[in-house]
Amino acid sequence: MATYKSPVQDMEFVLNEIINVGSLTEIEKFEDATEDIITGVLDEAAKQIDNTIGVLNESGDAEGASLNNGEVTTPEGFKEAYASYAESGWIGLDKDIEFDGQGLPYVLATAVTDMLSGANAAFSLYPGLSNGAYEALKAHGTQAQKETYMSHLSLGDWSGTMCLTEPGAGSDLGQVRTKAVPQEDGSYLIEGNKIFITAGEHDLTDNIIHLVLARTPGAPEGIRGISMFVVPKFLINEDGSLGERNAAECANIEEKMGIHGSSTCVMNFTDAKGYLVGELNKGIQNMFVMMNAARLMVGLQGLGVAERATQNAITYAKERKQGRPLTRKAESSFDSDTIIVHPDVRRMLFTMKALTEGCRMMAYDTAKHVDLSENHPDEAVRNASKARVDLMTPVCKAFITDVGVEVSGLGVQVYGGHGYIKEHGMEQNMRDSKIFCIYEGTNGIQAMDLVGRKLSMNDGQLPIDFFAEVKSELASASAEMAFVTQPLTSALSALEEVTAWLIKSKEEDLNDSAAAAVDYLQMFGLVSLGYYWLRAAKVASGKEGVFYQGKLATANFFATKLLPRVHGLAPVVMSGSRCVMEPSEELIV
Amino acid sequence: MATYKSPVQDMEFVLNEIINVGSLTEIEKFEDATEDIITGVLDEAAKQIDNTIGVLNESGDAEGASLNNGEVTTPEGFKEAYASYAESGWIGLDKDIEFDGQGLPYVLATAVTDMLSGANAAFSLYPGLSNGAYEALKAHGTQAQKETYMSHLSLGDWSGTMCLTEPGAGSDLGQVRTKAVPQEDGSYLIEGNKIFITAGEHDLTDNIIHLVLARTPGAPEGIRGISMFVVPKFLINEDGSLGERNAAECANIEEKMGIHGSSTCVMNFTDAKGYLVGELNKGIQNMFVMMNAARLMVGLQGLGVAERATQNAITYAKERKQGRPLTRKAESSFDSDTIIVHPDVRRMLFTMKALTEGCRMMAYDTAKHVDLSENHPDEAVRNASKARVDLMTPVCKAFITDVGVEVSGLGVQVYGGHGYIKEHGMEQNMRDSKIFCIYEGTNGIQAMDLVGRKLSMNDGQLPIDFFAEVKSELASASAEMAFVTQPLTSALSALEEVTAWLIKSKEEDLNDSAAAAVDYLQMFGLVSLGYYWLRAAKVASGKEGVFYQGKLATANFFATKLLPRVHGLAPVVMSGSRCVMEPSEELIV
Repeated sequence: MATYKSPVQDMEFVLNEIINVGSLTEIEKFEDATEDIITGVLDEAAKQIDNTIGVLNESGDAEGASLNNGEVTTPEGFKEAYASYAESGWIGLDKDIEFDGQGLPYVLATAVTDMLSGANAAFSLYPGLSNGAYEALKAHGTQAQKETYMSHLSLGDWSGTMCLTEPGAGSDLGQVRTKAVPQEDGSYLIEGNKIFITAGEHDLTDNIIHLVLARTPGAPEGIRGISMFVVPKFLINEDGSLGERNAAECANIEEKMGIHGSSTCVMNFTDAKGYLVGELNKGIQNMFVMMNAARLMVGLQGLGVAERATQNAITYAKERKQGRPLTRKAESSFDSDTIIVHPDVRRMLFTMKALTEGCRMMAYDTAKHVDLSENHPDEAVRNASKARVDLMTPVCKAFITDVGVEVSGLGVQVYGGHGYIKEHGMEQNMRDSKIFCIYEGTNGIQAMDLVGRKLSMNDGQLPIDFFAEVKSELASASAEMAFVTQPLTSALSALEEVTAWLIKSKEEDLNDSAAAAVDYLQMFGLVSLGYYWLRAAKVASGKEGVFYQGKLATANFFATKLLPRVHGLAPVVMSGSRCVMEPSEELIV
Repeated sequence: MATYKSPVQDMEFVLNEIINVGSLTEIEKFEDATEDIITGVLDEAAKQIDNTIGVLNESGDAEGASLNNGEVTTPEGFKEAYASYAESGWIGLDKDIEFDGQGLPYVLATAVTDMLSGANAAFSLYPGLSNGAYEALKAHGTQAQKETYMSHLSLGDWSGTMCLTEPGAGSDLGQVRTKAVPQEDGSYLIEGNKIFITAGEHDLTDNIIHLVLARTPGAPEGIRGISMFVVPKFLINEDGSLGERNAAECANIEEKMGIHGSSTCVMNFTDAKGYLVGELNKGIQNMFVMMNAARLMVGLQGLGVAERATQNAITYAKERKQGRPLTRKAESSFDSDTIIVHPDVRRMLFTMKALTEGCRMMAYDTAKHVDLSENHPDEAVRNASKARVDLMTPVCKAFITDVGVEVSGLGVQVYGGHGYIKEHGMEQNMRDSKIFCIYEGTNGIQAMDLVGRKLSMNDGQLPIDFFAEVKSELASASAEMAFVTQPLTSALSALEEVTAWLIKSKEEDLNDSAAAAVDYLQMFGLVSLGYYWLRAAKVASGKEGVFYQGKLATANFFATKLLPRVHGLAPVVMSGSRCVMEPSEELIV
């Protein structure tokens, strides 16, 4: 059976030694978020998550969520685990104090989400979806709406959903057909069908707050005619108590490849009572406000599952005996050695470590910029951090979730046949992680966001600023860091050339960058990880102990064996789109 | 629901226009294998496979094989489908006429296996495992053993298994502990436990013929003390009729990630009666005789599933409407276009096509060399083809099965959220295909076979001869083929440089090539596909019709967007093994 232990030491390394989370205490709101507090939070969260939620990962997968007469039952143990998780205040960790949150930095909540995803990705979606609802109401709700919902979402006795997708409207939300008809009392009656609604119905909370995209009569076609509505499962009485059941029903739950413990619902709204959130016809823009956070969260799901796969593969490789080193003749002894002696097994383990730990640095640093962008007193700092978050969000979402699938696959491979059977829990990681590449904007859409929007935002300043930061880190590196700086300089140079080519290509043919977007995002992610591994190597250099020596070894592996992948991608990006777009459809059979 | 239609047109293109299968009629044994016969066989096989076996793919996955009181029940419909498949003679297609086979070329059986794997990979394993038993008995059995078993295996009323793996002996067969104690009548009593035994028990055939690796008392340690035994489920009376039940029992069937319709058995042999096959202590060498064929077959499984994913993704991309081309403003019409207009969707579809169709050419050409190596009257031709088969077998096994996973994953991605739910059958491809990277020698072991054995075989002549063939194909290409020849020349040059480096590295540090083996095999596979796409482009050039135009477009895509991956791999291979091997185990945590 697979196990999971929250990687608290690595999390503290990233928070304290890589991104200097302590600097956030300079912001008044975070003055209490000292290193002690952060360590305490991580230790407590790890204890609870590992012991009560991580142990339900495989049983939750085997049992799955089930539907009976419109009621969804979550797997055994989820209800109790969720209750104690909510009671401990983890859901409200970074929520506002006035709404019963703890007001701690988002980057700390990020570390807890990383833990929770690694412990039990399916479980993590129940509290996870509440974030979007909370943020949407915070940004666009009336004061009364805020007071009605936000504390409950923060405390976790209610949960949230995002009801966007319909059978004919997935990536293309302009096709949303759900109707919202205004009533005399100012409410709306919502009528339509939504699919793929994560946590749309379940037995963990007293109420479920659906945020629904719908169209009012006569609204413009396309995305400019879509509005956002809050539709509670149980209507709320004037005094805040729960009233009658609303007509928002789960008609079916999907049979999926993985995340079986999470209920993915078909939701029917049959004249359900809803209330407009924000302005009419601004539903899509309202969604975008919370998109960065939601996408980062999905990246963390990929990270968590990658961590889970990596931990177990390393343990297995140190225990499982099979074969012997190439340098030892069979005749010396017929006993087998542990498989970690094999170069290819080590290659797989280091690949898993380098990608997972590298992504952790990238994700947490991006999360810290979220904190800065929202809370720093200096507007220039806020803007610079906002730009960084805008740039790195699609990279974190798509690159890390691709890493989730790659690392999960390597985890299966390290176990060999034992990885393919359910007993060891490694195949579940592959099944769970694939959805992260799809929902919250497919990775193809993330890549389009990167090349189509982010590269040109602020007059093209976003990548320029990031590359300058990488160069500055390179410039200040000592000669003994050459094992990273040389490959990184070369990789950055390739990325800069390709970036310039892409920006220019858009003047002539929009399809060039679109056809290259996924490969470009891979390059961007690899160079970003190279940058963070350089920072990690600098910190670890000269320090004693296996932890730091391990960081240096992993940085060296990344720079030597993974970063050069960019040189296979660069010519592909710059080959343009003719070979993709010119062939007529009838040739693709 | 996913569908599958055997790609007969592409198969005929490869057989007739790429590898010139008609030339096999020059060999006496194959003089009847004319183009007409081959077309007839393919059409008939496709009809039966698509209509009776392909339709059971998803139901077989949902139902799975089940065990009750030692009896395994295959999913509904498998029994009837297997009976009619065997009756039609498909299992014996390439088996010897004297043993009730049809004596047709192996390459034709290869095409049928490709179909069968695409139609229903789990089902394909039941007839598939009989091949190994047939070949082992053919090569090493006594005349009496041949007469007892081979016709039944060829006709399919009996099936075979390969009982190698034990809990402590997977990749390292030297650890096999199953005992074989000689009896006075010349038989042996077999005692031990085998795991992961594909088709170890099922309800499709009257008897099951287990080939078991075991150790006799006092045999040498390691792989030099292992012998091979034939252990029938039902003993066979003198007159050939079935006798008493042997003590070979299925104790459990594994819960797996995929191929649920295939029974993967824990087999207990409790003093089961067995008979030595071949010489004592030569069990491993005996196994190796059939290893090439078995590994090629697994490559075909990856190919089949990739084909299935590709077909469905293309169909879906032409039907599913979502979004609009980048070049069209929303305001012109709010209607959606089919997703095949999107550059990234096209990139995915062409990637799937280029890899799948490229692997088909590589696999069939290798299969034709199997026919030549075994049947050509000229010893020099036989030897050259044998060398080619030796070289390409690990490439076909590992590269194509990696392609199976990559293409299956892209298939899910093209469908978006609809790919992740079971309803459309795309996630099953990912689950089914992962095992192909593991069994019959993990892909890491294939890569070690390529760099450790095949590169140095025959004084290092194998890659030299293959590269010469690629160069000759390049040299004879016209200038209009530059879209392939230029990238291929560059890629081949990188591969040659890396190959020379690897061979030399073995003199100094065996770990260098071992640490680079998987990346090297990827390079080798990509260049091989480049070579076959050049051949396809030459054939298609100047020919009319969408089929040939599609081949040219796909060749162009492969050369432009996929082949350059080698340039990201070359520096990785040549970076050696220090970063992998120097860190002590305690640093890998």
